[in-house]
Amino acid sequence: MDDLYTLVNKVPSKKDFIDTTDFDQVEILDIIKTARVVRDYLKSGGVLDTLYHKNLAMLFEQKSTRTRVSFEVAMSELGGHALNLAPGAIQLGAHETIEDTAQVLGRMCDMIMARVDRHASVEALAKYADVPVLNGMSDYNHPTQEIGDMITILDHLPEGKKYNDIKVVFVGDCTQVCASLMMITTKMGMNFVHYGPENKWLSEDYQKIGRENIKKYGGSVTVTDNREVLKGADFIYTDVWYGLYDKETPKEVYMKDFYPTYQVNDDLMNATENPNCKFMHCLPANRNEEVTDSVMDGKNSICFDQAENRLTAQRGLVLHFGHAAQATLDYIKQKEGK
Amino acid sequence: MDDLYTLVNKVPSKKDFIDTTDFDQVEILDIIKTARVVRDYLKSGGVLDTLYHKNLAMLFEQKSTRTRVSFEVAMSELGGHALNLAPGAIQLGAHETIEDTAQVLGRMCDMIMARVDRHASVEALAKYADVPVLNGMSDYNHPTQEIGDMITILDHLPEGKKYNDIKVVFVGDCTQVCASLMMITTKMGMNFVHYGPENKWLSEDYQKIGRENIKKYGGSVTVTDNREVLKGADFIYTDVWYGLYDKETPKEVYMKDFYPTYQVNDDLMNATENPNCKFMHCLPANRNEEVTDSVMDGKNSICFDQAENRLTAQRGLVLHFGHAAQATLDYIKQKEGK
Amino acid sequence: MDDLYTLVNKVPSKKDFIDTTDFDQVEILDIIKTARVVRDYLKSGGVLDTLYHKNLAMLFEQKSTRTRVSFEVAMSELGGHALNLAPGAIQLGAHETIEDTAQVLGRMCDMIMARVDRHASVEALAKYADVPVLNGMSDYNHPTQEIGDMITILDHLPEGKKYNDIKVVFVGDCTQVCASLMMITTKMGMNFVHYGPENKWLSEDYQKIGRENIKKYGGSVTVTDNREVLKGADFIYTDVWYGLYDKETPKEVYMKDFYPTYQVNDDLMNATENPNCKFMHCLPANRNEEVTDSVMDGKNSICFDQAENRLTAQRGLVLHFGHAAQATLDYIKQKEGK
Repeated sequence: MDDLYTLVNKVPSKKDFIDTTDFDQVEILDIIKTARVVRDYLKSGGVLDTLYHKNLAMLFEQKSTRTRVSFEVAMSELGGHALNLAPGAIQLGAHETIEDTAQVLGRMCDMIMARVDRHASVEALAKYADVPVLNGMSDYNHPTQEIGDMITILDHLPEGKKYNDIKVVFVGDCTQVCASLMMITTKMGMNFVHYGPENKWLSEDYQKIGRENIKKYGGSVTVTDNREVLKGADFIYTDVWYGLYDKETPKEVYMKDFYPTYQVNDDLMNATENPNCKFMHCLPANRNEEVTDSVMDGKNSICFDQAENRLTAQRGLVLHFGHAAQATLDYIKQKEGK
Repeated sequence: MDDLYTLVNKVPSKKDFIDTTDFDQVEILDIIKTARVVRDYLKSGGVLDTLYHKNLAMLFEQKSTRTRVSFEVAMSELGGHALNLAPGAIQLGAHETIEDTAQVLGRMCDMIMARVDRHASVEALAKYADVPVLNGMSDYNHPTQEIGDMITILDHLPEGKKYNDIKVVFVGDCTQVCASLMMITTKMGMNFVHYGPENKWLSEDYQKIGRENIKKYGGSVTVTDNREVLKGADFIYTDVWYGLYDKETPKEVYMKDFYPTYQVNDDLMNATENPNCKFMHCLPANRNEEVTDSVMDGKNSICFDQAENRLTAQRGLVLHFGHAAQATLDYIKQKEGK
Repeated sequence: MDDLYTLVNKVPSKKDFIDTTDFDQVEILDIIKTARVVRDYLKSGGVLDTLYHKNLAMLFEQKSTRTRVSFEVAMSELGGHALNLAPGAIQLGAHETIEDTAQVLGRMCDMIMARVDRHASVEALAKYADVPVLNGMSDYNHPTQEIGDMITILDHLPEGKKYNDIKVVFVGDCTQVCASLMMITTKMGMNFVHYGPENKWLSEDYQKIGRENIKKYGGSVTVTDNREVLKGADFIYTDVWYGLYDKETPKEVYMKDFYPTYQVNDDLMNATENPNCKFMHCLPANRNEEVTDSVMDGKNSICFDQAENRLTAQRGLVLHFGHAAQATLDYIKQKEGK
């Protein structure tokens, strides 16, 4: 794996992080490895400066708590700085085209992270900016969430189980987080299930990506409203029901779709017949709609570990795409006298 | 006093700064000592890094100039970083409960500072976050202002006077700054007066806190509309009349309450019969309403020193609650060869 | 020139950057020299810390992409920090007078940069703040843009030509960028032309400044609607037609004024009869209104170099007015072993 790192760092040509589908399993695991090593080092009191004075522009077309805070803290912890370009702060696509903004930011900053309304915007940013662009969520996917979620799954991997044995069930609405969870779990060869009402199933286009993954890595993709599928789940994952952005759904509509069948409550957790089945949520949660307090605050809930691993993931991502991962790992190794 | 520091730093369990009433005089003076030593060291050209790469989340439900700038500069000067979560930037209490936001921020940041609409919010943040929470003003109190104000009072202490001899008169509306001034002056055993119209007097609940303080530390609490009370004041302090937040009062209403009797003008300053009586204001000021230009820009005005001491105070607070106060004082001592 | 630097750094009395007219050619060239040396040093992988822990308050009454990002990155790269006080974040001139805000920020920060609605505001900030104030654009001028633009012009100076031989033509609306371009080109003794419709000509007051400059430094000022003037231009520069701020003009009105005569398209570029004539734009551009894609994306377009030089300029400005220019140049010289 060290050889791959050397390659990445010796050839610092721009590489973007728009979609995990663009990367093979090895490189994803590489990012995750960096992220976890750095987490442990910082938690043990270590200090890093491998992104000293580097600047990440964070472009938000939508509000964000976790993505914004995690990237800003990650840059700060690594000696760099993140600029918060909040919704409306600059006029992406209004008084200036996305392409021009991309070129300008690429001339001034070392990296760009963008949360956009439409996936095409982050693709355009990547195409026109001279620096690496990281997708901080679009209407299509949420790849930085994928890295954090996979770190959390690996942190809580049932003992003795291999990736191909793991079953991850997403319950409810086919949000971009649901799609992203499918992409990353199948990339790792895990068994992914979307359990939801038929009119909210993950689209055929998304499922195709999962099927391509399992051809290479094993695992499976299932989309169903059959409750039987919960049996044997290692992880239950859910997301809000109200949709996103301009597509927000009125409460009476989404309640009819999902409630009570798809609420993650004690009954649903029990239906897994796995007393160690973990509960995950990308947050924010609409408590007592898609998940009850009893589950979210229960002993099997790892949703706040998951939130913390957003930070873990961002560190790995800015180091990897900032061409500083290998230097960081080398520094830590040296400091730890290994 | 060094022993106390050792205790604080050796036991880095989370302690919040929500209300000065939770702290005894010794610990408050300890914070103030740190703040003043650091101020002198930085003013003399010293550089500090004792919060290197530490991150403070600043959560604002209300706009702020002084609190925001002072905390952001304090963190930067000490080697750390402050994240500005502006009003509306994250959805505190909207799409996410305060409790969940607290848990998330506590997982990513080293400290949280919050300016909230309702005091219960900052209490909830403190309860649910794993890291120290500092109250950057609520509808109930403004404890970071208290520390800055007490530093300013100590900087301008009339020669030869002891704390028990000092008379501080707050003129006008019983804002949370008025209440806070009472809390901190009585905590120091000073004599506090609220001079205002009866319908705007500091409530019995607040006065009770002052009376508890003076039992321990001496001093007095007076609430009155008797102008005689101005005599012998060492400090005259005022605040705006329009109220706060959703409770803003129309001009015609508040003018009837306060004008002209409670305007701090030359007449009122003369009524102290103390030519050295200082003028204080937490700012922003509504010039020529609660205070005239002649007083605010006069030679006895220390309101801009007071503004600067917001920064002085925040340095002391982030170091104290960030468990870095003793290390900082030790470092400065060593640097200064003492 | 080193003597001048010594003077500036040895006498660290506050000096503001409100208008390039307040500075002679030598000092402007001095700032530009610092900016270019620092750019080269950072591009070659150098690291600087000469503004370590210094804090720049950035005050915006209007949205900004380039000015905000360039100042924030510049401070970060030099070891300092920039605070983004976004439009509406603090109440400049609302709940607090500009004068009071200036005094407060001057007590907490090391420098202030302000983009204001009215020029009088940045003048008031400079008068009342104890620290250097930099004008980040007003309705009157845009002096930080001037420095960046002059760096870009010098970067692309036609070989063998002296400043007095250079012809810079601004096409279109007499925006404050047009006025600023006249100020800086004539300060360098260049030949400035405003080519636009008569009702949009640069005012007599502005032209007077240019004429004062050419008395000292040579060059010329021409304001005309005669297309002949394009001949021999070394640089064609344009800006949007819709005006600024509350003075934004409806499209049907400005199109009648400017279109098609004053659109910078291939025809207009050809009219210069100079195949090497460069195209400049302060950005954001309203593509295919004041400039066509063919020109903006053509081989002679240097508008994105220009955007990058906003950052180049800001580094020079914060170092110069932060009294750290000479120390920085000395450090670089030493590091480069010269």
